[in-house]
Amino acid sequence: MAAAFPAGPSESSGCVMSAEVLDQPAVLRRLLADGADRIREVAEAVAAREPRFVLLTARGTSDHAALYAKYLLEIRRELPCGLTSMSTITAYGARPDLTGVLFISVSQWGGSPDLVAATWAAREAGAITLAVTNNPDSALAAVAEFHIDVLAGSERALPATKSYTASLLALYLFSEGLGGVDGAGAAGLLPELADEILARREEVRALATRYRFAPRMVAISRGYGYPTAQEAALKFMETSYLPALAYSGADLLHGPLAMIDNLSPVLAVVPEGPGGEALRPVLDRLRGRGADLCVVGPADEVRRASAGFVLPVEGVGEELQPVLEILPLHLLAYEISVARGYDPDAPRTMAKTPESS
Amino acid sequence: MAAAFPAGPSESSGCVMSAEVLDQPAVLRRLLADGADRIREVAEAVAAREPRFVLLTARGTSDHAALYAKYLLEIRRELPCGLTSMSTITAYGARPDLTGVLFISVSQWGGSPDLVAATWAAREAGAITLAVTNNPDSALAAVAEFHIDVLAGSERALPATKSYTASLLALYLFSEGLGGVDGAGAAGLLPELADEILARREEVRALATRYRFAPRMVAISRGYGYPTAQEAALKFMETSYLPALAYSGADLLHGPLAMIDNLSPVLAVVPEGPGGEALRPVLDRLRGRGADLCVVGPADEVRRASAGFVLPVEGVGEELQPVLEILPLHLLAYEISVARGYDPDAPRTMAKTPESS
Repeated sequence: MAAAFPAGPSESSGCVMSAEVLDQPAVLRRLLADGADRIREVAEAVAAREPRFVLLTARGTSDHAALYAKYLLEIRRELPCGLTSMSTITAYGARPDLTGVLFISVSQWGGSPDLVAATWAAREAGAITLAVTNNPDSALAAVAEFHIDVLAGSERALPATKSYTASLLALYLFSEGLGGVDGAGAAGLLPELADEILARREEVRALATRYRFAPRMVAISRGYGYPTAQEAALKFMETSYLPALAYSGADLLHGPLAMIDNLSPVLAVVPEGPGGEALRPVLDRLRGRGADLCVVGPADEVRRASAGFVLPVEGVGEELQPVLEILPLHLLAYEISVARGYDPDAPRTMAKTPESS
Repeated sequence: MAAAFPAGPSESSGCVMSAEVLDQPAVLRRLLADGADRIREVAEAVAAREPRFVLLTARGTSDHAALYAKYLLEIRRELPCGLTSMSTITAYGARPDLTGVLFISVSQWGGSPDLVAATWAAREAGAITLAVTNNPDSALAAVAEFHIDVLAGSERALPATKSYTASLLALYLFSEGLGGVDGAGAAGLLPELADEILARREEVRALATRYRFAPRMVAISRGYGYPTAQEAALKFMETSYLPALAYSGADLLHGPLAMIDNLSPVLAVVPEGPGGEALRPVLDRLRGRGADLCVVGPADEVRRASAGFVLPVEGVGEELQPVLEILPLHLLAYEISVARGYDPDAPRTMAKTPESS
């Protein structure tokens, strides 16, 4: 377990979140060592049922892990996927026929009543149900036919961090297993690269100095990186009360671009791969408008931006880069929060349960 | 065709958008009179193919019409649905087996290259493809097996308004037709109620005075009203460069609530029905925090809010209320834009084609 950061305004403020952020390489190592075999068994059992379609359900941070799984399953397994609108089941009582549908619920805590109700309804409707949680004793784990434990350990800060990256890796291992592949090998470099990234705190502090007075932020990406943009925006809102809008780069051009001026820095998550390539014309447009652009991605794009963080991804496919992309953004959300005098461990009005997932 | 509003800073500024907003009752009448039969025929032909699930694809304003269709098809047809992540097909080249899948593309203009490519790929992958556009001569209409023309007429202002409500009504008629029902009867009251709403411009001007200096806005709803919250947020961004975040009320409690303070007014779209009921506990939370709350919905909720607009929905089911809910918000986006000295007809950096949909 790594030490907390040097403290901000108060000695203890944020030290739980910082410890959990720094714990992530160890969490990834543990999941690869102790969880991968069990995940592959679950994936093989699900694969034997030959799902034709996947529905994913989650809220908050876990919704972004579910979105990541949607990209994995659509691209790598070529399974059509949808994110559920939970209210159609819980508020409107819809009972679709879900025979042959794989219904995946993602939740760190595993106790949100609407998620449990939706998963139970899906199971009754014939779906193959899988819960992915950080809590094997949860109601969600009990109600689903299959369960994957992401093994992130107890998470006490209100903003979820290590349970998010653990969920991403668990979903990757599951998706690979569904295709009969052992994903642990390809993921083997992640813990070391995560260590390397989290050691570069001084760079992130400089970014925090640059953005601590920003009145708002826009986060963009494409493809596999898009869930990272969503999750980064949520983290900035949770920890620093910084209004942050997240867009796929393609959607940004459909209206919201009008809103970007020199008061709205743009955080661009640029993966190395087709998603990043598809984002580059959007970055050109933003540079053409003189936007302040902060890139998390390859060195050449960081150089062309106003600021940024070069992400080491050598040997890591684009489909695994989201596990690394979010790490400097966890640090940045933490640093901005502390610089603004807030306590990132316990943001105002947030409760870990039952409302966070 | 109704007259333009009294002009703002410049005589002509915004007069195209205002005319198109006020044209909406006539557009709805035309679609019911001249389009409903053709839509029912398309729906019957699609129903005969017995789709097992639905994928919807769109961008920008049309994405919110697609989200509305998702609620309709999940709740009223009990068909599982998903919104596509277009890049999985266009950037990553995924080619899922879409036999038995209904693939619906929604686009006002019908020319976005990625939408055309994704629809073509879906058709090749075995999907039943349906394009819903305001342009029967478009590439999208040509590439899809089925086409529905929303008959909104030429739309010249850059922010789409009448093509949005026309798309909602067309998708409603299609969804009802898929269930063997003629939806035109239930929708018959909409044009008159739309006239009534659009005549209440003075009320909306008072709201614009209240919110013209707001630095940002949060729009929320649940269920059928959620696409309206999304679309309202987009319209505020497009016309007034007002950063606006949209959430389902349930998701708001998962973190972003921390960001709401007395500088962030909350716009709540409160349908009359289960979606509105599910939103009420969230409104209680917001009132408990002292948030400035602007309600579009029933009289009792407007009375308990800081400000609002009582929406007349007598005789209109919750599933059709989105066609009405957006109308005062179209007016409000227009009025705030003009009050701020902008030209809502031609927001900076927006182009009607090829980037808007």
